[in-house]
Amino acid sequence: MSERIFNFGAGPGVLPEPVLRDAQRDIWDIAGSGIGIMEHSHRGKVFDAIAQEAERECRELAGIGDEYDVLFLQGGASLQFAMLPMNLLPKDRTADYLVTGVWSEKAVKEAKLFGTVHEAASSADRKFTYIPEPSAIRYSERPVYVHMTTNNTIYGTQWRTEPPVPAGVPLVADTSSDMFSRPIDIAKYGMVYAGAQKNLGPSGVVLVIMRKELVERGPKDLPTMLQYRTAARERSLYNTPPTFGMYVMGRVFRWIRELGGLAAMAERNAEKARIIYDFLDQSEFYRTTVEPAARSRMNVCFRAPSEELEAKFVSEATKRGLEGLKGHRSAGGMRASIYNAFPKEGCHALVQFMKEFETANR
Amino acid sequence: MSERIFNFGAGPGVLPEPVLRDAQRDIWDIAGSGIGIMEHSHRGKVFDAIAQEAERECRELAGIGDEYDVLFLQGGASLQFAMLPMNLLPKDRTADYLVTGVWSEKAVKEAKLFGTVHEAASSADRKFTYIPEPSAIRYSERPVYVHMTTNNTIYGTQWRTEPPVPAGVPLVADTSSDMFSRPIDIAKYGMVYAGAQKNLGPSGVVLVIMRKELVERGPKDLPTMLQYRTAARERSLYNTPPTFGMYVMGRVFRWIRELGGLAAMAERNAEKARIIYDFLDQSEFYRTTVEPAARSRMNVCFRAPSEELEAKFVSEATKRGLEGLKGHRSAGGMRASIYNAFPKEGCHALVQFMKEFETANR
Repeated sequence: MSERIFNFGAGPGVLPEPVLRDAQRDIWDIAGSGIGIMEHSHRGKVFDAIAQEAERECRELAGIGDEYDVLFLQGGASLQFAMLPMNLLPKDRTADYLVTGVWSEKAVKEAKLFGTVHEAASSADRKFTYIPEPSAIRYSERPVYVHMTTNNTIYGTQWRTEPPVPAGVPLVADTSSDMFSRPIDIAKYGMVYAGAQKNLGPSGVVLVIMRKELVERGPKDLPTMLQYRTAARERSLYNTPPTFGMYVMGRVFRWIRELGGLAAMAERNAEKARIIYDFLDQSEFYRTTVEPAARSRMNVCFRAPSEELEAKFVSEATKRGLEGLKGHRSAGGMRASIYNAFPKEGCHALVQFMKEFETANR
Repeated sequence: MSERIFNFGAGPGVLPEPVLRDAQRDIWDIAGSGIGIMEHSHRGKVFDAIAQEAERECRELAGIGDEYDVLFLQGGASLQFAMLPMNLLPKDRTADYLVTGVWSEKAVKEAKLFGTVHEAASSADRKFTYIPEPSAIRYSERPVYVHMTTNNTIYGTQWRTEPPVPAGVPLVADTSSDMFSRPIDIAKYGMVYAGAQKNLGPSGVVLVIMRKELVERGPKDLPTMLQYRTAARERSLYNTPPTFGMYVMGRVFRWIRELGGLAAMAERNAEKARIIYDFLDQSEFYRTTVEPAARSRMNVCFRAPSEELEAKFVSEATKRGLEGLKGHRSAGGMRASIYNAFPKEGCHALVQFMKEFETANR
């Protein structure tokens, strides 16, 4: 069997097929060099062009100016949870965290190793099924930064826009699960970071966009690899970077640009989400689990009338070539992850299956 | 042009062609799953089998017992330079380092951030062109570990065997540039680590083989991602690992096993190195730069009579499809890296070119 199926997995997620086709070719021999992309020196001309293109495409997509560094790091968002406070949270200072799910909580846990954490808002009281109102946020006196998680994969919630932050305080966002799924005004952020494996590329690369003044703020007695300035000064080439991941990421950026850029991507993603949410809203069999205003356009979470029916749903969907619909174990139910590269046809196919399943089981 | 050329690059280096062919296929659809290898969930059955296979093949190649954890980490050997002392070198203790090149020196620099470093031996006095004799090693009173770099890519030197270490002191080796190029007796080591991009796979994955008692020795108040126990407990799946890199690494391990394992690989690599060194030894035009007893079988460094001729050599070799022969900028001259996947035919082609170049330029 060589036909590709609809991959609703929460991450690593589906990648654009034109990018996969390029990668298939370039793994053997890229740009007529006689050497595959994985085998090129990170100091050579071929990879240099790839690295430069990845950065340039990234900057163009979001109009990122020279006051920001664009870095390609390793260790996932999970290492950023620690690297951020290690660099920016002095022992005697406080950082404010907006807690909207397990990933926010993990970020809080790491930050507490370095300084004081103030939870300025949390939606834990209702199991993270909503996004806090701006009026509910209580910032501390003088936070060194405010940290948020823009999209919460497990619960299917997403911030519609940036919350207000105190004047002069940098906003830091973990955008791992919705980066470049819509326009992003980088000027509102001190730092944005995103593990690649949902919207941007394969796992093993983290995109970090960081204001240069923040890059330079970190202590100089940290391990070399854990200082942002190391990657900034060496354009992510202090040591051998994840060259293949950077290559794929650059191609995904180019693919987004060719589709019309972030505005077009947002429209496409909104339409995909609408296909599923509209069906859910009229159904009396399925139900959504989050407040309508907080609905994620990346991860659509929903339930069936019983856990038995949910297990049956997932199992039968899989047989129909609709893969990865099981909800996260901590949330239960179903979850359809529809990242940038997920095709609209897959959303229609899901709704069609949902209808048939409802008819057969109600 | 789709013909592959001979890639003498020092890293990322050449990969086995059968592995590249598999990767080309599996990027689109692996194991008939309808989903490409990069797009599979790290928690799903398909990737689970891949991760298990990678670990199993690794253990079988070197006969690694249950008293060791086999981990797949990120950040390269450069992050290990810091993570190792962060976990194993208390502030009031000393670790001994055998310094045989720039990479050893970088490891020393990071260790000094955490505790005391004693350089038990160094070949810096003669620009790292030799490997210290066991009799020249002066260990400190009670080191927590001894660190060595088994192969030195820049100078073309390699330890033939492990140096003696004080009883009960764990030996830690950075084997980034010769891992699995020959049999390795893991029982002699407390820990072995290797960035993948020379002998084992693409950049972005580090193989760490570590005695379980050492894994558990690290402080528990380190960032989660920087404790070895995190990866050990979660079988490298605490967060999303570099799934594609692990896949390629597993296939490279399998390829080594199918070729006959580490003993066969050592024989193959010795023969490849002999082809070049034998020619160098009889030549009055070229000269080698390291002591014969310290010659690396991975990186063969040599000089021509003048820097002008060296530049001409590299340029003409490139035109002949012999790529990556320029020596490291800090060492000059030429360097032929002939890692596991580099074919013997390439060594013959190099010698043939060297003969012709000598005839034309002597």
